Amino acid sequence: MVGIGVIGYGYWGPNLVRNFSQISDAGVVAVCDQRAQRRALVESLYPNTKAYGDVHDIIADPAVDAVVIATPLSTHFDIALQALQGGKHVLVEKPFTASAAQAEQLVEIAEKRRRILMVDHTFIYTGAVRKLKELVDRGGLGQLFYYDSLRVNLGLFQHDVNVLWDLAVHDLSIMDFVLGQRPSMIAATGVAHIPGQPENLAYLTCHFENNLIAHFHVNWLAPVKVRRTLIGGSDKMVVYDDLEPSEKIKIYDKGVTVDLGDRPEDVIPLLVGYRAGDMLAPQLDLTEALDIEARHFVDCITRDRRPLSDGQAGLRMVRLLEAASRSLAQRGRPVDICWED
Amino acid sequence: MVGIGVIGYGYWGPNLVRNFSQISDAGVVAVCDQRAQRRALVESLYPNTKAYGDVHDIIADPAVDAVVIATPLSTHFDIALQALQGGKHVLVEKPFTASAAQAEQLVEIAEKRRRILMVDHTFIYTGAVRKLKELVDRGGLGQLFYYDSLRVNLGLFQHDVNVLWDLAVHDLSIMDFVLGQRPSMIAATGVAHIPGQPENLAYLTCHFENNLIAHFHVNWLAPVKVRRTLIGGSDKMVVYDDLEPSEKIKIYDKGVTVDLGDRPEDVIPLLVGYRAGDMLAPQLDLTEALDIEARHFVDCITRDRRPLSDGQAGLRMVRLLEAASRSLAQRGRPVDICWED
Amino acid sequence: MVGIGVIGYGYWGPNLVRNFSQISDAGVVAVCDQRAQRRALVESLYPNTKAYGDVHDIIADPAVDAVVIATPLSTHFDIALQALQGGKHVLVEKPFTASAAQAEQLVEIAEKRRRILMVDHTFIYTGAVRKLKELVDRGGLGQLFYYDSLRVNLGLFQHDVNVLWDLAVHDLSIMDFVLGQRPSMIAATGVAHIPGQPENLAYLTCHFENNLIAHFHVNWLAPVKVRRTLIGGSDKMVVYDDLEPSEKIKIYDKGVTVDLGDRPEDVIPLLVGYRAGDMLAPQLDLTEALDIEARHFVDCITRDRRPLSDGQAGLRMVRLLEAASRSLAQRGRPVDICWED
Amino acid sequence: MVGIGVIGYGYWGPNLVRNFSQISDAGVVAVCDQRAQRRALVESLYPNTKAYGDVHDIIADPAVDAVVIATPLSTHFDIALQALQGGKHVLVEKPFTASAAQAEQLVEIAEKRRRILMVDHTFIYTGAVRKLKELVDRGGLGQLFYYDSLRVNLGLFQHDVNVLWDLAVHDLSIMDFVLGQRPSMIAATGVAHIPGQPENLAYLTCHFENNLIAHFHVNWLAPVKVRRTLIGGSDKMVVYDDLEPSEKIKIYDKGVTVDLGDRPEDVIPLLVGYRAGDMLAPQLDLTEALDIEARHFVDCITRDRRPLSDGQAGLRMVRLLEAASRSLAQRGRPVDICWED
Repeated sequence: MVGIGVIGYGYWGPNLVRNFSQISDAGVVAVCDQRAQRRALVESLYPNTKAYGDVHDIIADPAVDAVVIATPLSTHFDIALQALQGGKHVLVEKPFTASAAQAEQLVEIAEKRRRILMVDHTFIYTGAVRKLKELVDRGGLGQLFYYDSLRVNLGLFQHDVNVLWDLAVHDLSIMDFVLGQRPSMIAATGVAHIPGQPENLAYLTCHFENNLIAHFHVNWLAPVKVRRTLIGGSDKMVVYDDLEPSEKIKIYDKGVTVDLGDRPEDVIPLLVGYRAGDMLAPQLDLTEALDIEARHFVDCITRDRRPLSDGQAGLRMVRLLEAASRSLAQRGRPVDICWED
Repeated sequence: MVGIGVIGYGYWGPNLVRNFSQISDAGVVAVCDQRAQRRALVESLYPNTKAYGDVHDIIADPAVDAVVIATPLSTHFDIALQALQGGKHVLVEKPFTASAAQAEQLVEIAEKRRRILMVDHTFIYTGAVRKLKELVDRGGLGQLFYYDSLRVNLGLFQHDVNVLWDLAVHDLSIMDFVLGQRPSMIAATGVAHIPGQPENLAYLTCHFENNLIAHFHVNWLAPVKVRRTLIGGSDKMVVYDDLEPSEKIKIYDKGVTVDLGDRPEDVIPLLVGYRAGDMLAPQLDLTEALDIEARHFVDCITRDRRPLSDGQAGLRMVRLLEAASRSLAQRGRPVDICWED
Repeated sequence: MVGIGVIGYGYWGPNLVRNFSQISDAGVVAVCDQRAQRRALVESLYPNTKAYGDVHDIIADPAVDAVVIATPLSTHFDIALQALQGGKHVLVEKPFTASAAQAEQLVEIAEKRRRILMVDHTFIYTGAVRKLKELVDRGGLGQLFYYDSLRVNLGLFQHDVNVLWDLAVHDLSIMDFVLGQRPSMIAATGVAHIPGQPENLAYLTCHFENNLIAHFHVNWLAPVKVRRTLIGGSDKMVVYDDLEPSEKIKIYDKGVTVDLGDRPEDVIPLLVGYRAGDMLAPQLDLTEALDIEARHFVDCITRDRRPLSDGQAGLRMVRLLEAASRSLAQRGRPVDICWED
Repeated sequence: MVGIGVIGYGYWGPNLVRNFSQISDAGVVAVCDQRAQRRALVESLYPNTKAYGDVHDIIADPAVDAVVIATPLSTHFDIALQALQGGKHVLVEKPFTASAAQAEQLVEIAEKRRRILMVDHTFIYTGAVRKLKELVDRGGLGQLFYYDSLRVNLGLFQHDVNVLWDLAVHDLSIMDFVLGQRPSMIAATGVAHIPGQPENLAYLTCHFENNLIAHFHVNWLAPVKVRRTLIGGSDKMVVYDDLEPSEKIKIYDKGVTVDLGDRPEDVIPLLVGYRAGDMLAPQLDLTEALDIEARHFVDCITRDRRPLSDGQAGLRMVRLLEAASRSLAQRGRPVDICWED
């Protein structure tokens, strides 16, 4: 029985409490929030759960084996550090930390203390993204050409982070999980249209080896909601539309055919053709991702396993976001990414 | 009665002949194509139209008042130059020319010889794009924030030009017409996935004054066909979906509200809100764009008027494409655009 | 402060408890369910709410001013009758009762005892349906031609009632509310494809005066989910798509133009034309319908007002369903409806 | 080389001439139209084709081996009769004839004279409908439950026939081809909203053996264009959306599971479940249906084969339409269909 402590009971915290409460070999023993009103809400809904106002207290609680940190980004590092030092396992909301240096430090201490450190890259626990990874891993798409992602909507404006750190982190973590490759160069451009506010629209490009390119469009101020990714390969192409109720993944047996046989060079143009075939929308596991993720966290703790979205995955995302921020500050100049390992 | 000569009877030529044939105060008096088979087709379909094999002959024909050039890009300049020097009015397919220097020279000679010089930016003659321009000109969108365009499909691979010169030129000409502003900086990145072939996928960004940004995604190898543009303004936002059969333009009365009154700075975050209202899909003129454009060309000739898509417009597009090509060669490094006027 | 007692804590009961709990001048003081497990759930979630196992007890509870009946259809009449006789106000799930005779008796006793009797026709409390009614009431559609409704999906199979009593009752109540007219004839046809189960697919037609026709397609075994209604009028036409996230109502300024001037009869065919104009998707109130409905019930009790979906409305729906069942038994033979008032 | 004569050069005639002109072993040798203006158009477009004003003349022309009749319905019988008696093969537009008696007579004479008699049920020659037939024939859908068809739009109002004879004939011929079964009972209801005009909206139901039901909604006055058919079977279900550019057929591996094992009767309700699986959109042959059909007609003539849409198929459709008209006249009373063979 793993005792869970949830730190931060704002927008996401209630979802975390609800999901961890449903797991048989875990229990939400404590919640922490600075706001008395939020604590009162916890107490009325969950009479058996302690409600702390101070982070030190929840970390000091011996009934708490693991903490889930759902506070603003700027506080992630300090809280996670204290928790790890206090011997707790840690699950942190995305984005993991505000800098790669912070992320590295947390990874290191978790390793040393042999604690589970996991980052809440929720989407990689959806049936759709797991199916995408399976497709790519089996090689069914052929040589990968591009990964193109669109995530736009109207209605959620953040104040502490810009649209890259808020929205693109979702898509970067999906890309990281599905492609299993690291980009060598990144470029980002974006604009802050509301005075005094962070960038609300951004475009981000990642360059990989072998001509693979990834591109992300994130936008807080679009009139319509779109969450669609295209993945193009030499053999098949995929459309992943997260807003489709059930057919979220469509696999198109379409592609380019190239015949580069021993013909004179000027004939080559005629040898590029198109191929069309069936489209398949595979059945997906529609279980709530957070449920799967919460069970995975508990499972990693009880069996001492490495999470799919471990601290290293969180660190990779922060590195990409840091590099993107450097490019953004130079109006889109591409910057190399140093992976250092 | 304006005598029209169509040069190049390949993919687009038949559409030009058909549309110019329907205009009462014009007539297609001659067609020119190097291929005997294409000339035979013209002769069987239009017994009263002369079919030339040599460009010099059609230009020398005194019955030809104006030529329409629908040949490969690399030949546009030479043919247009001859035609203007021969005293003909000229309509050239997009992209106008292979370089800005060529475009400038054509503009200059057309001015000097007082001939109409027009570029076939077909989309600006559609009811949808004219409605967009009307909206922007009336100021109904408020301050313009962004212009985001997506034009992808599977099925047409060019060999002589890359995807920017083939597809993005459509969107750049729409943007140029609708926004009526010139970008000061441009960046483009793209990939050629088929060995020996031009770039088949590209992303292009244009920066304007006042934080206006435009972005274009063009792709020859997508599994689905999409032609959608989002225009975001401070008051309203527009979705222009060219594949919708009738409701191509949707105007959303949505936006961000910002109250920056005399409140303490730390309260500002709370003052950004969202506003939602009706959506209107205005009735559009669904007349074939090429019909309107052909009539406009004839009208400009007979009334000595300046075409909407004149040589200057063509030149602007070639300048953008040249700058984009420079950026593309540097993997997306932003380049300044010098408008020199 | 109105004391609410909810009878039946199965699929819909929890939604009722949740919504009535949020109303400031009402409180859910008791819940009744025969199943001990459901009562235990109520007790753990709502420690201050009494959990009864017997209907007589909850009706006898003096703290209960009004009961909400969310039990199987076959029990509606008995429970509602007891509750009204016990002096309680009553809100009954749809369909109201299993027969018109039962419905009439409940209406009568509610009148006599001066109790509020309301039926849970949830959809008429949505922003979309209220907007439809507003449109029709203002006469904006012109003369009404047809009302065509489609409600199909895969995933909910009832065993005690057929698809008409389960799904069509939603659409009939929307139609009744929006059109404000009563059909004079009804026809229904349907099939039970699963042995021993009720009809899972049905088509129902209502004939009104002045050539207005309404048609309903309801289906439990469709591969896709569709909830779409078309309303055609002489001036405008409406598409109501309940699955659209925000633009649920689209008003098309389209129609037929007829010129029946003093011309010879054989020319008439030429005088029917089409008219196309803008399409407008008005902003809708997206508040949860059940919240609005619960407040309306409480409001009717405290101010002694007649509910929008009163017992008479429930009776009208049961009359239509009874007539539909008679037609269904005769494979679609149209039957007259006697309104008797 | 089959000499084709096209009778009627109105809306559909030009398509027929264009398609028959493209067939190598056939030629359009003559066209017939009463209107001098239409004949002049034929002469200018096809100088080698004779243009007759009188039906007798085109039938008397010995160069004409087969006639294609694209005239108003009321004239089909007389012209087809003359043509068959004149020894010509005959292809007639849908609907075949105005009465079953007429259709029978034509079938008989064609048999006697050993001439090909074919009806232009265009849709059965599309790749989509041929794929549907293949699916049903292979038994992939399991036991057939229902066939539900929706064909509505705004913009084509006929004056000589009502919406059943104009639109439903398409869907009836698709159903007839795909299901390969004949309904035993039919019901139709509809309304004429424009004074002096035929019914513009109708609903039609066909009952087959084994609980199979088919339903058709046809409407000339809808604000949106929809052409969608659902086919439900015990194993799989199909959506056929003719307006989809390429994925017109979607096969859903969804269905109802029923376990009727030896359990007590009152448990049965619990044994109905749902099953969900992949969705497949098979690649379709997108060749223009009329091209395939024209070649099939010529092929049947040259090889003396029976057309897929022969006179018998045309007769079946007219029988259904006649029965539907009888039902329509009785406001939807179901009528039995006597197949007499």
